[in-house]
Amino acid sequence: MAKRQTERYPIQGPNSLWQLYKTVSFWKVAKCFIVVQIARYTPWMPLKNWMYRTFLGMEIGENTAVALMVMMDTMFPERISIGANSIIGYNTTILAHEYLIDEYRLGNVKIGARVMVGANSTILPGVTIGDDAIVSAATLVNADVPPGAFVGGNPMRIIRQPKIEQEEYTGESE
Amino acid sequence: MAKRQTERYPIQGPNSLWQLYKTVSFWKVAKCFIVVQIARYTPWMPLKNWMYRTFLGMEIGENTAVALMVMMDTMFPERISIGANSIIGYNTTILAHEYLIDEYRLGNVKIGARVMVGANSTILPGVTIGDDAIVSAATLVNADVPPGAFVGGNPMRIIRQPKIEQEEYTGESE
Amino acid sequence: MAKRQTERYPIQGPNSLWQLYKTVSFWKVAKCFIVVQIARYTPWMPLKNWMYRTFLGMEIGENTAVALMVMMDTMFPERISIGANSIIGYNTTILAHEYLIDEYRLGNVKIGARVMVGANSTILPGVTIGDDAIVSAATLVNADVPPGAFVGGNPMRIIRQPKIEQEEYTGESE
Repeated sequence: MAKRQTERYPIQGPNSLWQLYKTVSFWKVAKCFIVVQIARYTPWMPLKNWMYRTFLGMEIGENTAVALMVMMDTMFPERISIGANSIIGYNTTILAHEYLIDEYRLGNVKIGARVMVGANSTILPGVTIGDDAIVSAATLVNADVPPGAFVGGNPMRIIRQPKIEQEEYTGESE
Repeated sequence: MAKRQTERYPIQGPNSLWQLYKTVSFWKVAKCFIVVQIARYTPWMPLKNWMYRTFLGMEIGENTAVALMVMMDTMFPERISIGANSIIGYNTTILAHEYLIDEYRLGNVKIGARVMVGANSTILPGVTIGDDAIVSAATLVNADVPPGAFVGGNPMRIIRQPKIEQEEYTGESE
Repeated sequence: MAKRQTERYPIQGPNSLWQLYKTVSFWKVAKCFIVVQIARYTPWMPLKNWMYRTFLGMEIGENTAVALMVMMDTMFPERISIGANSIIGYNTTILAHEYLIDEYRLGNVKIGARVMVGANSTILPGVTIGDDAIVSAATLVNADVPPGAFVGGNPMRIIRQPKIEQEEYTGESE
Protein backbone atom coordinates (compact mmCIF):
# COMPACT_ATOMS: atom_id res chain seq x y z
CA MET A 1 0.00 0.00 0.00
CA ALA A 2 1.45 3.35 -1.03
CA LYS A 3 1.96 5.85 1.79
CA ARG A 4 -0.27 8.89 1.95
CA GLN A 5 1.07 12.26 0.76
CA THR A 6 0.94 15.46 2.81
CA GLU A 7 2.59 18.88 2.56
CA ARG A 8 4.34 20.08 5.73
CA TYR A 9 4.28 23.60 7.13
CA PRO A 10 6.62 24.17 10.12
CA ILE A 11 5.51 26.71 12.74
CA GLN A 12 7.14 28.66 15.60
CA GLY A 13 5.95 28.88 19.23
CA PRO A 14 3.17 26.79 20.80
CA ASN A 15 1.57 23.89 18.91
CA SER A 16 -0.10 24.54 15.56
CA LEU A 17 -3.66 23.87 16.76
CA TRP A 18 -3.27 26.52 19.46
CA GLN A 19 -2.33 28.94 16.67
CA LEU A 20 -5.07 27.66 14.35
CA TYR A 21 -6.39 30.98 13.08
CA LYS A 22 -2.90 32.07 11.97
CA THR A 23 -3.01 29.15 9.51
CA VAL A 24 -6.61 29.43 8.29
CA SER A 25 -9.13 32.25 8.65
CA PHE A 26 -11.64 32.01 11.49
CA TRP A 27 -14.44 32.97 9.08
CA LYS A 28 -13.57 30.19 6.69
CA VAL A 29 -13.63 27.62 9.50
CA ALA A 30 -16.91 29.03 10.83
CA LYS A 31 -18.55 28.86 7.40
CA CYS A 32 -17.28 25.34 6.73
CA PHE A 33 -18.33 24.17 10.19
CA ILE A 34 -21.90 25.43 9.72
CA VAL A 35 -22.24 23.88 6.25
CA VAL A 36 -20.76 20.55 7.37
CA GLN A 37 -23.08 20.40 10.39
CA ILE A 38 -26.20 21.15 8.35
CA ALA A 39 -25.12 18.63 5.70
CA ARG A 40 -24.58 15.95 8.36
CA TYR A 41 -28.33 15.96 9.07
CA THR A 42 -29.64 16.71 5.56
CA PRO A 43 -31.76 13.71 4.49
CA TRP A 44 -31.69 14.36 0.72
CA MET A 45 -28.53 13.26 -1.07
CA PRO A 46 -28.81 15.65 -4.06
CA LEU A 47 -29.27 18.66 -1.76
CA LYS A 48 -26.34 17.54 0.39
CA ASN A 49 -24.06 17.20 -2.65
CA TRP A 50 -25.13 20.65 -3.86
CA MET A 51 -24.13 22.12 -0.49
CA TYR A 52 -20.75 20.38 -0.58
CA ARG A 53 -20.04 21.58 -4.12
CA THR A 54 -21.39 25.13 -3.75
CA PHE A 55 -20.25 26.16 -0.28
CA LEU A 56 -17.24 23.92 0.37
CA GLY A 57 -15.72 23.65 -3.10
CA MET A 58 -15.68 19.86 -2.97
CA GLU A 59 -15.83 17.68 -6.10
CA ILE A 60 -18.60 15.12 -5.76
CA GLY A 61 -19.49 12.78 -8.63
CA GLU A 62 -22.98 12.01 -9.87
CA ASN A 63 -25.23 9.80 -7.73
CA THR A 64 -22.72 9.68 -4.90
CA ALA A 65 -24.49 9.17 -1.56
CA VAL A 66 -23.08 10.55 1.69
CA ALA A 67 -24.82 9.02 4.72
CA LEU A 68 -26.06 10.58 7.93
CA MET A 69 -23.56 12.42 10.13
CA VAL A 70 -20.53 12.10 7.86
CA MET A 71 -17.92 14.66 9.01
CA MET A 72 -16.02 16.43 6.26
CA ASP A 73 -12.86 18.39 7.16
CA THR A 74 -14.05 21.74 8.57
CA MET A 75 -10.86 23.61 7.61
CA PHE A 76 -9.88 22.44 4.13
CA PRO A 77 -12.90 20.61 2.66
CA GLU A 78 -11.95 21.79 -0.86
CA ARG A 79 -9.15 19.20 -0.71
CA ILE A 80 -11.67 16.32 -0.67
CA SER A 81 -12.97 14.80 -3.91
CA ILE A 82 -15.28 11.81 -4.38
CA GLY A 83 -16.04 10.09 -7.71
CA ALA A 84 -19.43 9.04 -9.09
CA ASN A 85 -21.82 6.47 -7.60
CA SER A 86 -19.84 6.05 -4.37
CA ILE A 87 -21.21 5.56 -0.84
CA ILE A 88 -19.72 7.15 2.28
CA GLY A 89 -21.10 5.41 5.38
CA TYR A 90 -22.63 6.78 8.57
CA ASN A 91 -20.45 9.04 10.72
CA THR A 92 -17.30 8.60 8.63
CA THR A 93 -14.65 11.27 9.29
CA ILE A 94 -12.68 12.60 6.32
CA LEU A 95 -9.68 14.73 7.34
CA ALA A 96 -7.51 16.88 5.04
CA HIS A 97 -5.33 18.33 7.82
CA GLU A 98 -3.13 17.25 10.72
CA TYR A 99 -2.15 19.82 13.31
CA LEU A 100 0.95 18.65 15.19
CA ILE A 101 3.20 20.20 17.84
CA ASP A 102 5.77 21.90 15.60
CA GLU A 103 4.14 21.78 12.16
CA TYR A 104 0.87 21.25 10.41
CA ARG A 105 0.24 19.08 7.37
CA LEU A 106 -2.33 19.26 4.60
CA GLY A 107 -3.19 16.53 2.13
CA ASN A 108 -5.74 15.92 -0.61
CA VAL A 109 -8.18 13.06 -0.11
CA LYS A 110 -9.16 11.46 -3.42
CA ILE A 111 -11.93 8.89 -3.29
CA GLY A 112 -12.69 7.17 -6.59
CA ALA A 113 -15.90 6.05 -8.30
CA ARG A 114 -18.09 3.19 -7.05
CA VAL A 115 -16.23 3.18 -3.74
CA MET A 116 -17.97 2.01 -0.56
CA VAL A 117 -16.77 3.29 2.82
CA GLY A 118 -18.30 1.62 5.90
CA ALA A 119 -19.73 3.43 8.93
CA ASN A 120 -17.51 5.05 11.57
CA SER A 121 -14.37 4.98 9.43
CA THR A 122 -11.60 7.59 9.74
CA ILE A 123 -9.88 8.71 6.53
CA LEU A 124 -6.59 10.55 7.06
CA PRO A 125 -5.21 13.43 4.94
CA GLY A 126 -3.25 12.58 1.81
CA VAL A 127 -5.01 9.30 1.07
CA THR A 128 -6.17 8.05 -2.34
CA ILE A 129 -8.88 5.37 -2.47
CA GLY A 130 -9.05 3.71 -5.90
CA ASP A 131 -12.20 3.06 -7.96
CA ASP A 132 -14.40 0.13 -6.86
CA ALA A 133 -12.60 -0.23 -3.52
CA ILE A 134 -14.49 -1.35 -0.41
CA VAL A 135 -13.52 -0.01 3.01
CA SER A 136 -14.96 -2.01 5.94
CA ALA A 137 -16.77 -0.24 8.80
CA ALA A 138 -14.62 1.40 11.50
CA THR A 139 -11.44 1.30 9.38
CA LEU A 140 -8.54 3.71 9.92
CA VAL A 141 -7.58 4.57 6.33
CA ASN A 142 -3.94 5.59 6.88
CA ALA A 143 -2.54 4.56 3.46
CA ASP A 144 -3.68 4.48 -0.16
CA VAL A 145 -6.25 1.83 -1.08
CA PRO A 146 -5.65 0.12 -4.48
CA PRO A 147 -8.56 0.07 -6.97
CA GLY A 148 -10.95 -2.81 -6.35
CA ALA A 149 -9.37 -3.80 -3.04
CA PHE A 150 -11.33 -4.71 0.09
CA VAL A 151 -9.61 -3.24 3.17
CA GLY A 152 -10.43 -3.03 6.86
CA GLY A 153 -9.17 -2.97 10.42
CA ASN A 154 -7.11 -0.72 12.63
CA PRO A 155 -4.37 -0.63 11.48
CA MET A 156 -5.80 -1.07 7.99
CA ARG A 157 -4.98 -4.27 6.12
CA ILE A 158 -5.83 -5.48 2.62
CA ILE A 159 -8.38 -8.26 3.14
CA ARG A 160 -8.86 -9.10 -0.54
CA GLN A 161 -7.76 -7.61 -3.83
CA PRO A 162 -8.49 -8.34 -7.47
CA LYS A 163 -6.30 -10.94 -9.22
CA ILE A 164 -4.85 -8.47 -11.70
CA GLU A 165 -3.53 -6.35 -8.87
CA GLN A 166 -1.91 -9.32 -7.20
CA GLU A 167 -0.07 -10.19 -10.39
CA GLU A 168 1.26 -6.66 -10.68
CA TYR A 169 2.60 -6.89 -7.17
CA THR A 170 4.15 -10.35 -7.30
CA GLY A 171 5.04 -10.42 -10.99
CA GLU A 172 3.50 -13.89 -11.24
CA SER A 173 0.33 -15.21 -12.81
CA GLU A 174 -1.57 -18.15 -11.38
CA MET B 1 -17.13 -17.22 15.50
CA ALA B 2 -20.25 -17.76 13.40
CA LYS B 3 -20.73 -15.31 10.52
CA ARG B 4 -23.47 -12.74 10.75
CA GLN B 5 -26.70 -13.28 8.79
CA THR B 6 -28.24 -10.71 6.45
CA GLU B 7 -30.97 -10.79 3.81
CA ARG B 8 -29.99 -9.34 0.41
CA TYR B 9 -32.14 -7.15 -1.81
CA PRO B 10 -30.65 -6.41 -5.26
CA ILE B 11 -31.49 -3.04 -6.86
CA GLN B 12 -31.29 -1.47 -10.34
CA GLY B 13 -29.68 1.86 -11.28
CA PRO B 14 -27.51 4.02 -9.02
CA ASN B 15 -26.37 2.79 -5.61
CA SER B 16 -28.97 1.77 -3.03
CA LEU B 17 -28.28 4.67 -0.63
CA TRP B 18 -28.95 7.18 -3.41
CA GLN B 19 -32.34 5.45 -3.87
CA LEU B 20 -32.94 5.19 -0.12
CA TYR B 21 -36.58 6.28 -0.02
CA LYS B 22 -37.56 3.65 -2.58
CA THR B 23 -36.51 1.05 0.00
CA VAL B 24 -37.92 2.62 3.16
CA SER B 25 -40.43 5.43 3.62
CA PHE B 26 -39.05 8.94 4.23
CA TRP B 27 -41.57 9.40 7.07
CA LYS B 28 -40.44 6.27 8.83
CA VAL B 29 -36.79 7.37 8.67
CA ALA B 30 -37.71 10.88 9.85
CA LYS B 31 -39.68 9.53 12.82
CA CYS B 32 -36.96 7.05 13.79
CA PHE B 33 -34.25 9.72 13.43
CA ILE B 34 -36.07 12.11 15.77
CA VAL B 35 -36.74 9.43 18.39
CA VAL B 36 -33.16 8.13 18.24
CA GLN B 37 -31.73 11.65 18.58
CA ILE B 38 -33.92 12.51 21.58
CA ALA B 39 -33.13 9.15 23.18
CA ARG B 40 -29.38 9.73 22.70
CA TYR B 41 -29.57 12.62 25.16
CA THR B 42 -32.28 11.31 27.51
CA PRO B 43 -30.70 10.94 30.96
CA TRP B 44 -33.27 8.52 32.45
CA MET B 45 -32.87 4.89 31.44
CA PRO B 46 -36.52 3.81 32.02
CA LEU B 47 -37.82 6.72 29.89
CA LYS B 48 -35.29 5.92 27.16
CA ASN B 49 -36.34 2.24 27.08
CA TRP B 50 -39.99 3.27 26.90
CA MET B 51 -39.22 5.44 23.86
CA TYR B 52 -37.34 2.60 22.16
CA ARG B 53 -40.16 0.13 22.79
CA THR B 54 -43.08 2.44 22.01
CA PHE B 55 -41.88 4.43 19.02
CA LEU B 56 -39.23 2.18 17.46
CA GLY B 57 -40.68 -1.28 18.13
CA MET B 58 -37.46 -2.49 19.74
CA GLU B 59 -37.38 -5.27 22.34
CA ILE B 60 -35.48 -4.11 25.42
CA GLY B 61 -35.25 -6.30 28.53
CA GLU B 62 -35.80 -5.17 32.10
CA ASN B 63 -33.13 -2.99 33.76
CA THR B 64 -31.13 -2.70 30.55
CA ALA B 65 -29.16 0.57 30.49
CA VAL B 66 -28.32 2.35 27.24
CA ALA B 67 -25.67 5.04 27.78
CA LEU B 68 -25.40 8.58 26.45
CA MET B 69 -25.36 9.08 22.68
CA VAL B 70 -25.89 5.47 21.65
CA MET B 71 -26.99 5.42 17.99
CA MET B 72 -29.67 2.92 17.09
CA ASP B 73 -30.34 2.16 13.41
CA THR B 74 -32.51 5.02 12.09
CA MET B 75 -34.10 2.95 9.31
CA PHE B 76 -34.88 -0.49 10.79
CA PRO B 77 -34.62 -0.16 14.59
CA GLU B 78 -37.35 -2.78 15.05
CA ARG B 79 -34.72 -5.35 14.04
CA ILE B 80 -32.70 -4.68 17.22
CA SER B 81 -33.39 -6.58 20.46
CA ILE B 82 -31.52 -6.42 23.76
CA GLY B 83 -32.01 -8.79 26.71
CA ALA B 84 -32.40 -7.93 30.40
CA ASN B 85 -29.81 -6.23 32.64
CA SER B 86 -27.41 -5.42 29.78
CA ILE B 87 -25.30 -2.27 29.32
CA ILE B 88 -24.70 -0.56 25.97
CA GLY B 89 -21.78 1.88 26.30
CA TYR B 90 -21.40 5.52 25.29
CA ASN B 91 -21.80 6.35 21.58
CA THR B 92 -22.10 2.74 20.43
CA THR B 93 -23.55 2.37 16.92
CA ILE B 94 -25.98 -0.49 16.28
CA LEU B 95 -26.75 -1.00 12.58
CA ALA B 96 -29.45 -3.24 11.09
CA HIS B 97 -28.83 -2.27 7.45
CA GLU B 98 -26.03 -2.05 4.88
CA TYR B 99 -26.61 -0.03 1.72
CA LEU B 100 -24.15 -1.14 -0.97
CA ILE B 101 -23.67 -0.25 -4.64
CA ASP B 102 -25.92 -2.87 -6.25
CA GLU B 103 -27.91 -4.22 -3.33
CA TYR B 104 -28.91 -3.51 0.22
CA ARG B 105 -28.87 -5.91 3.14
CA LEU B 106 -30.89 -6.09 6.33
CA GLY B 107 -30.11 -8.14 9.40
CA ASN B 108 -31.46 -8.59 12.92
CA VAL B 109 -29.19 -7.64 15.80
CA LYS B 110 -29.81 -9.83 18.87
CA ILE B 111 -28.03 -8.82 22.03
CA GLY B 112 -28.49 -11.17 24.98
CA ALA B 113 -28.97 -10.65 28.72
CA ARG B 114 -26.24 -9.36 31.06
CA VAL B 115 -24.17 -8.28 28.05
CA MET B 116 -21.72 -5.37 28.36
CA VAL B 117 -20.78 -3.38 25.24
CA GLY B 118 -17.96 -0.86 25.66
CA ALA B 119 -18.01 2.76 24.45
CA ASN B 120 -17.59 3.69 20.77
CA SER B 121 -18.24 0.17 19.48
CA THR B 122 -19.81 -0.52 16.08
CA ILE B 123 -22.24 -3.46 15.83
CA LEU B 124 -22.98 -4.60 12.27
CA PRO B 125 -26.31 -5.96 10.96
CA GLY B 126 -27.01 -9.67 11.39
CA VAL B 127 -24.98 -10.14 14.55
CA THR B 128 -25.97 -12.17 17.64
CA ILE B 129 -24.22 -11.41 20.94
CA GLY B 130 -24.74 -14.20 23.47
CA ASP B 131 -25.78 -13.81 27.13
CA ASP B 132 -23.08 -12.62 29.57
CA ALA B 133 -20.69 -11.61 26.76
CA ILE B 134 -18.35 -8.64 27.18
CA VAL B 135 -17.46 -6.46 24.20
CA SER B 136 -14.44 -4.20 24.76
CA ALA B 137 -14.62 -0.47 23.93
CA ALA B 138 -14.18 0.56 20.28
CA THR B 139 -14.80 -2.98 18.96
CA LEU B 140 -16.07 -3.69 15.45
CA VAL B 141 -18.60 -6.46 16.06
CA ASN B 142 -18.61 -8.10 12.61
CA ALA B 143 -19.39 -11.68 13.68
CA ASP B 144 -21.46 -13.45 16.31
CA VAL B 145 -20.15 -13.33 19.88
CA PRO B 146 -20.50 -16.63 21.84
CA PRO B 147 -22.23 -16.47 25.26
CA GLY B 148 -19.87 -15.49 28.06
CA ALA B 149 -17.01 -14.57 25.70
CA PHE B 150 -14.85 -11.47 26.08
CA VAL B 151 -14.14 -9.96 22.65
CA GLY B 152 -12.43 -6.83 21.38
CA GLY B 153 -10.35 -5.18 18.68
CA ASN B 154 -10.74 -4.25 15.05
CA PRO B 155 -11.02 -6.76 13.50
CA MET B 156 -12.75 -8.38 16.48
CA ARG B 157 -11.01 -11.26 18.20
CA ILE B 158 -12.04 -13.53 21.08
CA ILE B 159 -9.83 -12.48 23.99
CA ARG B 160 -11.22 -14.98 26.50
CA GLN B 161 -14.06 -17.44 26.56
CA PRO B 162 -15.54 -19.78 29.15
CA LYS B 163 -14.03 -23.29 29.39
CA ILE B 164 -17.23 -25.06 28.39
CA GLU B 165 -17.31 -23.16 25.11
CA GLN B 166 -13.72 -24.06 24.32
CA GLU B 167 -14.49 -27.75 24.79
CA GLU B 168 -17.39 -27.56 22.39
CA TYR B 169 -15.15 -25.99 19.78
CA THR B 170 -12.13 -28.27 20.13
CA GLY B 171 -13.90 -31.43 21.21
CA GLU B 172 -11.33 -31.85 23.98
CA SER B 173 -11.43 -31.37 27.72
CA GLU B 174 -8.44 -30.25 29.71
CA MET C 1 3.00 -1.37 28.64
CA ALA C 2 1.85 -0.98 32.23
CA LYS C 3 -1.81 -1.83 32.86
CA ARG C 4 -4.22 0.97 33.65
CA GLN C 5 -5.31 1.52 37.26
CA THR C 6 -8.92 1.79 38.40
CA GLU C 7 -10.71 1.70 41.76
CA ARG C 8 -13.60 -0.76 42.02
CA TYR C 9 -16.94 -0.16 43.72
CA PRO C 10 -19.21 -3.24 43.94
CA ILE C 11 -22.97 -2.66 43.82
CA GLN C 12 -26.13 -4.65 44.66
CA GLY C 13 -29.16 -5.23 42.40
CA PRO C 14 -29.40 -4.33 38.70
CA ASN C 15 -26.34 -3.15 36.74
CA SER C 16 -24.49 -0.03 37.90
CA LEU C 17 -25.49 2.15 34.93
CA TRP C 18 -29.17 1.50 35.64
CA GLN C 19 -28.50 2.81 39.19
CA LEU C 20 -26.33 5.67 37.94
CA TYR C 21 -27.71 8.45 40.12
CA LYS C 22 -27.07 6.44 43.27
CA THR C 23 -23.36 6.66 42.43
CA VAL C 24 -23.15 10.28 41.25
CA SER C 25 -25.61 13.13 41.64
CA PHE C 26 -27.97 13.87 38.73
CA TRP C 27 -27.18 17.57 39.02
CA LYS C 28 -23.46 17.01 38.73
CA VAL C 29 -23.93 14.91 35.59
CA ALA C 30 -26.32 17.50 34.12
CA LYS C 31 -23.88 20.35 34.77
CA CYS C 32 -20.91 18.43 33.38
CA PHE C 33 -22.90 17.34 30.33
CA ILE C 34 -23.88 20.92 29.48
CA VAL C 35 -20.33 22.26 29.91
CA VAL C 36 -18.81 19.40 27.89
CA GLN C 37 -21.33 19.90 25.06
CA ILE C 38 -20.73 23.67 24.87
CA ALA C 39 -16.96 23.11 25.01
CA ARG C 40 -17.15 20.56 22.18
CA TYR C 41 -18.24 23.34 19.81
CA THR C 42 -16.28 26.27 21.30
CA PRO C 43 -13.85 27.48 18.62
CA TRP C 44 -11.41 29.34 20.90
CA MET C 45 -8.90 27.16 22.74
CA PRO C 46 -8.24 29.54 25.68
CA LEU C 47 -11.99 29.91 26.38
CA LYS C 48 -12.44 26.15 26.15
CA ASN C 49 -9.61 25.52 28.64
CA TRP C 50 -11.08 28.12 31.00
CA MET C 51 -14.40 26.26 30.92
CA TYR C 52 -12.73 22.92 31.62
CA ARG C 53 -10.76 24.33 34.55
CA THR C 54 -13.52 26.47 36.06
CA PHE C 55 -16.62 24.31 35.71
CA LEU C 56 -15.21 20.77 35.50
CA GLY C 57 -12.20 21.00 37.83
CA MET C 58 -9.86 19.62 35.19
CA GLU C 59 -6.13 20.41 35.12
CA ILE C 60 -5.14 21.69 31.68
CA GLY C 61 -1.60 22.94 30.98
CA GLU C 62 -0.68 26.13 29.16
CA ASN C 63 -1.19 26.27 25.37
CA THR C 64 -2.87 22.88 25.30
CA ALA C 65 -5.32 22.67 22.37
CA VAL C 66 -8.44 20.50 22.51
CA ALA C 67 -9.97 20.06 19.04
CA LEU C 68 -13.57 20.18 17.89
CA MET C 69 -16.05 17.73 19.45
CA VAL C 70 -13.69 16.14 21.98
CA MET C 71 -15.81 14.34 24.59
CA MET C 72 -14.61 14.60 28.18
CA ASP C 73 -16.09 12.25 30.80
CA THR C 74 -19.49 13.70 31.77
CA MET C 75 -19.52 12.13 35.24
CA PHE C 76 -16.00 12.50 36.67
CA PRO C 77 -14.15 15.05 34.48
CA GLU C 78 -12.15 16.23 37.50
CA ARG C 79 -10.17 12.98 37.19
CA ILE C 80 -8.71 14.07 33.83
CA SER C 81 -5.48 16.11 33.63
CA ILE C 82 -3.54 17.21 30.56
CA GLY C 83 -0.05 18.76 30.56
CA ALA C 84 1.17 21.84 28.67
CA ASN C 85 1.35 22.27 24.89
CA SER C 86 -0.52 19.04 24.10
CA ILE C 87 -3.04 18.41 21.32
CA ILE C 88 -6.19 16.32 21.72
CA GLY C 89 -7.59 15.48 18.28
CA TYR C 90 -11.10 15.77 16.84
CA ASN C 91 -13.86 13.76 18.54
CA THR C 92 -11.54 11.95 20.95
CA THR C 93 -13.36 10.35 23.90
CA ILE C 94 -11.70 10.51 27.34
CA LEU C 95 -13.40 8.30 29.93
CA ALA C 96 -12.75 8.27 33.70
CA HIS C 97 -15.44 5.70 34.56
CA GLU C 98 -16.61 2.21 33.61
CA TYR C 99 -20.08 1.09 34.66
CA LEU C 100 -20.27 -2.70 34.61
CA ILE C 101 -22.92 -5.24 35.61
CA ASP C 102 -21.97 -5.79 39.26
CA GLU C 103 -19.55 -2.95 39.96
CA TYR C 104 -18.37 0.38 38.67
CA ARG C 105 -14.79 1.54 38.30
CA LEU C 106 -13.20 4.96 38.38
CA GLY C 107 -9.70 5.88 37.22
CA ASN C 108 -7.63 9.02 36.74
CA VAL C 109 -6.51 9.85 33.21
CA LYS C 110 -3.14 11.60 33.17
CA ILE C 111 -2.00 12.98 29.84
CA GLY C 112 1.50 14.51 29.84
CA ALA C 113 3.02 17.56 28.15
CA ARG C 114 3.61 17.84 24.39
CA VAL C 115 1.39 14.80 23.80
CA MET C 116 -0.49 14.41 20.52
CA VAL C 117 -3.67 12.33 20.42
CA GLY C 118 -5.12 11.64 16.95
CA ALA C 119 -8.77 12.07 15.94
CA ASN C 120 -11.48 9.60 16.98
CA SER C 121 -9.37 7.95 19.69
CA THR C 122 -10.87 6.39 22.82
CA ILE C 123 -8.94 6.80 26.09
CA LEU C 124 -10.05 4.46 28.88
CA PRO C 125 -10.12 5.24 32.63
CA GLY C 126 -6.93 4.73 34.63
CA VAL C 127 -4.52 5.42 31.78
CA THR C 128 -1.31 7.50 31.94
CA ILE C 129 0.12 8.90 28.69
CA GLY C 130 3.73 10.03 29.11
CA ASP C 131 5.23 13.34 27.94
CA ASP C 132 5.97 13.67 24.21
CA ALA C 133 3.96 10.55 23.33
CA ILE C 134 2.08 10.33 20.03
CA VAL C 135 -1.22 8.44 19.83
CA SER C 136 -2.34 7.66 16.26
CA ALA C 137 -5.88 8.44 15.10
CA ALA C 138 -8.66 6.01 16.09
CA THR C 139 -6.54 4.30 18.77
CA LEU C 140 -8.06 2.47 21.75
CA VAL C 141 -5.79 3.59 24.60
CA ASN C 142 -6.33 0.68 27.01
CA ALA C 143 -2.90 0.71 28.69
CA ASP C 144 -0.30 3.25 29.78
CA VAL C 145 1.74 4.90 27.02
CA PRO C 146 5.47 5.36 27.81
CA PRO C 147 6.94 8.87 27.39
CA GLY C 148 8.00 9.60 23.82
CA ALA C 149 6.38 6.46 22.40
CA PHE C 150 4.32 6.36 19.20
CA VAL C 151 1.32 4.07 19.64
CA GLY C 152 -1.70 3.14 17.57
CA GLY C 153 -4.23 0.51 16.58
CA ASN C 154 -7.03 -1.42 18.19
CA PRO C 155 -5.83 -3.14 20.29
CA MET C 156 -3.13 -0.54 20.89
CA ARG C 157 0.46 -1.46 20.04
CA ILE C 158 3.74 0.41 20.44
CA ILE C 159 4.78 1.35 16.90
CA ARG C 160 8.00 3.12 17.86
CA GLN C 161 9.65 4.17 21.08
CA PRO C 162 12.77 6.14 21.98
CA LYS C 163 16.05 4.20 22.33
CA ILE C 164 16.50 5.05 25.98
CA GLU C 165 13.17 3.47 26.83
CA GLN C 166 14.03 0.29 24.99
CA GLU C 167 17.24 -0.05 26.99
CA GLU C 168 15.37 0.30 30.25
CA TYR C 169 13.02 -2.46 29.22
CA THR C 170 15.56 -4.95 27.88
CA GLY C 171 18.48 -4.03 30.13
CA GLU C 172 20.73 -3.96 27.06
CA SER C 173 22.36 -1.16 25.11
CA GLU C 174 22.97 -1.42 21.39
